[in-house]
Amino acid sequence: MHDPLALIREDLLRVETHFQQNTLSDVAVITEIGHYLQESGGKRLRPALVLLTSRLCDCPEESMIRLAAIVEMIHSATLVHDDIIDEADMRRGRPSTNSRWGSHMSVLAGDWLYMQAFSLALEERRFEILDTLIGLTQNMVEGELIQFQILSRVVTPEQHLELIRRKTACLFEVSSKLGALAAGQPAEVTQRLSAYGYHLGMAFQMVDDILDFTASEQALGKPVGNDLREGKMTLPAIYAWEKATAEEREQMETVMRDGNYESVPFARIRAILERHGAIERARNEGRVQAEQARQQVAGFPESPWREALVTIPELLMNRDH
Amino acid sequence: MHDPLALIREDLLRVETHFQQNTLSDVAVITEIGHYLQESGGKRLRPALVLLTSRLCDCPEESMIRLAAIVEMIHSATLVHDDIIDEADMRRGRPSTNSRWGSHMSVLAGDWLYMQAFSLALEERRFEILDTLIGLTQNMVEGELIQFQILSRVVTPEQHLELIRRKTACLFEVSSKLGALAAGQPAEVTQRLSAYGYHLGMAFQMVDDILDFTASEQALGKPVGNDLREGKMTLPAIYAWEKATAEEREQMETVMRDGNYESVPFARIRAILERHGAIERARNEGRVQAEQARQQVAGFPESPWREALVTIPELLMNRDH
Repeated sequence: MHDPLALIREDLLRVETHFQQNTLSDVAVITEIGHYLQESGGKRLRPALVLLTSRLCDCPEESMIRLAAIVEMIHSATLVHDDIIDEADMRRGRPSTNSRWGSHMSVLAGDWLYMQAFSLALEERRFEILDTLIGLTQNMVEGELIQFQILSRVVTPEQHLELIRRKTACLFEVSSKLGALAAGQPAEVTQRLSAYGYHLGMAFQMVDDILDFTASEQALGKPVGNDLREGKMTLPAIYAWEKATAEEREQMETVMRDGNYESVPFARIRAILERHGAIERARNEGRVQAEQARQQVAGFPESPWREALVTIPELLMNRDH
Repeated sequence: MHDPLALIREDLLRVETHFQQNTLSDVAVITEIGHYLQESGGKRLRPALVLLTSRLCDCPEESMIRLAAIVEMIHSATLVHDDIIDEADMRRGRPSTNSRWGSHMSVLAGDWLYMQAFSLALEERRFEILDTLIGLTQNMVEGELIQFQILSRVVTPEQHLELIRRKTACLFEVSSKLGALAAGQPAEVTQRLSAYGYHLGMAFQMVDDILDFTASEQALGKPVGNDLREGKMTLPAIYAWEKATAEEREQMETVMRDGNYESVPFARIRAILERHGAIERARNEGRVQAEQARQQVAGFPESPWREALVTIPELLMNRDH
């Protein structure tokens, strides 16, 4: 299978430049933080979605580059504030903004990035784009609040799906439809691309949650079993919980309560998940979402962009980190 | 002199209701924090400016109420994030949001309020209003960042004026011009109201800074001499510094470094300011700004709203808290 991002390599570089040029401020620390975030890399999956869907529906190039930069800026702002909430020391293998600049600066840097993203979005002079971005941000902020409130609690699959919808799928959904909005495409096109992004985002997060249990630390670049230790019950853990014995439940709760794998080793938790087929069940859910994403774009006229979009769900399902 | 706010008492109540109705969220803690902020009161000076200037230039009522609520919402969001930065325990005589809900929740609550304000502003369907509000917020965030960076440093009058422009005057300026923007008034009207708000905001902050040195603790409802102790050099301190002896400078620096008045009592600082006529000089600066504000509205056709706007600068200059 070829690399679908090869198609937009040049465009992605233009997005990087646009991001960097638009995080220049009179206030030097803003420029520093903006540069730090930009050079820290990341998968750039969200801007890639903006680019591929924009190419698919003839969105003007200037808008396409701008919208991709906006999406990455909103994503960065969210990470900066989330890392404060989660007291995360590291992000993408480097010190997080809050551990490098302190949480005080990071609150304001996050605010500034949100505003700058909206300021760029205003250049499009389209109310629907602004409605979409403001609604998205509110959804994501509410998602983080909900997550903070249910930390270390046993949750239902429905609660968890609602959480990943807000925390991940919404941004994928918006990334996939912005180009259509900017190109003034009919509602039916926008709706299909929107649904593509939504299902892709759900599948992406489900795989992320599975990898946290199944990947090697080497592939992941961080310790495995993070989520449960941080008190976050994801789909594999939730499915295992449903079928677990009283003793197994007690062991899962111990990890969440202790915040480490000292009394209950990670291998024991893995064994509980395996025994109840929880990982396989979660993977199947992911496959259903990926397939639903694929179907949304399969009907577009043939083009290299369509091929890339059709390929991405399967690639994301098969990744090992 | 009569109370200029008596004219808009009913309108202000409608603004309170609108604020409250628009801080309802599926996420219960948002609603709680929104309600807490709304009932905590405050002077409501910024929404009052929206209302009076809107009445002056025939802004439709629905827009007027909405815009006043938006301004108060942005003001609240800023206070919530500023209190995290300043590690403030109290706000308006009650525990601050961060001391009651923790700084984690407060980061997100502030984000949510910003987004909700923009979401309401989008209902106006006017790009200029959105440009204005996003630019405003960015200015304020940059102001807070600058303040954080120059904390405990000796600053020039120019640096300080730039800071109070961003931190206070910008919001007064925007509050005073939104009604004109919503009413589609010609640029000349918008510009005059804008200048009114700007000068009023500068005068307001100058008086605030003076009161921090001259008011009684009883009138102020908080300890005096707060700014210098927190490492914030305001106009009276800056003017005193310019003429101070080496020994006096050393004493002022001691307060900023220690963060208290234990080695150098507050009365000593007051004496330094008096000796160099620093408070009187700062008050004169305030008077100049207040007079410039007054002149901007004096030329509007006679109406109760104009009278109120003309009166406000002098009232703000003469307040004792």
